[in-house]
Amino acid sequence: MSVAFIGLGAMGGPMAGHVSAAGLLKAVGNRTFAKAEAFAAAHEGVVAVESLAQLPESVDVVISCVTADADVLELAQSLAALARPGLVLIDHSTIASASAVQAAEIMRAAGGDFLDAPVSGGVEGARNGKLSIMAGGHPDTLGQVQPILQGYAARITHMGDVGAGQNTKAVNQVLVAGIAQAVCEGMALAEALGLDPTRLLPTLGAGAAQNWFMERRGPTMLANQFSSGFKLALLHKDLLIVKALAESAGTDHSIVDKCLADYGTLMAQGHGDDEISSLIRLKRKP
Amino acid sequence: MSVAFIGLGAMGGPMAGHVSAAGLLKAVGNRTFAKAEAFAAAHEGVVAVESLAQLPESVDVVISCVTADADVLELAQSLAALARPGLVLIDHSTIASASAVQAAEIMRAAGGDFLDAPVSGGVEGARNGKLSIMAGGHPDTLGQVQPILQGYAARITHMGDVGAGQNTKAVNQVLVAGIAQAVCEGMALAEALGLDPTRLLPTLGAGAAQNWFMERRGPTMLANQFSSGFKLALLHKDLLIVKALAESAGTDHSIVDKCLADYGTLMAQGHGDDEISSLIRLKRKP
Repeated sequence: MSVAFIGLGAMGGPMAGHVSAAGLLKAVGNRTFAKAEAFAAAHEGVVAVESLAQLPESVDVVISCVTADADVLELAQSLAALARPGLVLIDHSTIASASAVQAAEIMRAAGGDFLDAPVSGGVEGARNGKLSIMAGGHPDTLGQVQPILQGYAARITHMGDVGAGQNTKAVNQVLVAGIAQAVCEGMALAEALGLDPTRLLPTLGAGAAQNWFMERRGPTMLANQFSSGFKLALLHKDLLIVKALAESAGTDHSIVDKCLADYGTLMAQGHGDDEISSLIRLKRKP
Repeated sequence: MSVAFIGLGAMGGPMAGHVSAAGLLKAVGNRTFAKAEAFAAAHEGVVAVESLAQLPESVDVVISCVTADADVLELAQSLAALARPGLVLIDHSTIASASAVQAAEIMRAAGGDFLDAPVSGGVEGARNGKLSIMAGGHPDTLGQVQPILQGYAARITHMGDVGAGQNTKAVNQVLVAGIAQAVCEGMALAEALGLDPTRLLPTLGAGAAQNWFMERRGPTMLANQFSSGFKLALLHKDLLIVKALAESAGTDHSIVDKCLADYGTLMAQGHGDDEISSLIRLKRKP
């Protein structure tokens, strides 16, 4: 297999690095092209492509890690226009499951295939190759690209048909956002009570309050460090997708609504690029 | 050391069992006295006491795991009335830190001492002896009773003076209650989307959504099993303490308020004895 990776952000960058380390990466693309050029310069055998028309003939798998639904659909259309049967698009972005189904229709009509394969595990998971991949699509296609994904995944789970990966990611984001509410509200109280973080965090982590987010973001939020991790404007974007999904499913979305309101406030205050633990700002005594 | 254990509920029962297994337990007490009698009958060398006046002379440490602040204060007063200098009361209940300070004053005035030592880790933590103990009080006293606590703790943390244990537990309960909101809202959505729990839960657990509660209560809540675990009426009681504490600290308590409202609704519907994951009832499509 021969891979092109599109989208070299905080997650995509390190993921593409793992594909390159496995000797499978041939090309990279990125909206800010200089980033793709820098990546190519640092990785032997990898070329930077400005448009998909420049995609090396040998590439049979394209991986995307971009932001919006429209980015993924545009990418699928550009790949379909190349008329290369057998071409597989694996999308790691968080988009609506309906958009994933649309992208699959486009790829399949052109004789290719599509997997929705959103990820969880944060920037550290991308860096150390320990992401959880929740995939939807043909199991045979997933089996075929498994060796690529294994380069950056601790766990790859086939959740069902195309869209099932994104539906799983939507559920994941309810938990991620809601847990941030719980932990930030708790940490603001702990801080006000003068509890020592070096004793508090391991104590909480040894009981029923244990969670991934507190272990990674507890120490940094209490030190007012919000520069690395998951940008809150991106979680806000994801939660708009989640809210629409919960509305159509008819389930309660009150925690999602609360998170949307709070992250909206922080974005309006100019904190959109902060890590999601920056929510502690709204939990502290005013 | 020679121990009496007061309060043989879902947590206290197994904890007292560990003290007995260590050969340190001499007496047990319980509001419903038949429970204490049954425990004593099943554990050699342990007597059931109906009142603290019957406390064996050899007992130098009393451990309590009861419900309300008033229970603990009454216990401290009864022990002080025994006028046995050196008697230590260790309280594992969740009460206000101000009540813990009051109990310590009573015990110390009688020549004894007091530790607030609330626990986290659920009924399974109590059963398998893997609780997290968050303790407040004199470090020397804590050091002295450490061998008893080690029988049911995976971690014992000295958080500071008397009251610091309860302050830590308050923070713990913010997380426990808020994480339940996040997980129940996510699980209701997953259920409505038809996602397979046997694939969903390990997938979420391998990423940034990982948490203790989902791992233990995810499978049971999706199977509508709410009979074992942490009774929601008890969490509601704890959250009233937490809310008062956050109000006086001046920090935001909006997630705590939401949990109080939801658990209040479930109690009014007759579900007060359900496990806290029963919150999923309010998250599902009506």
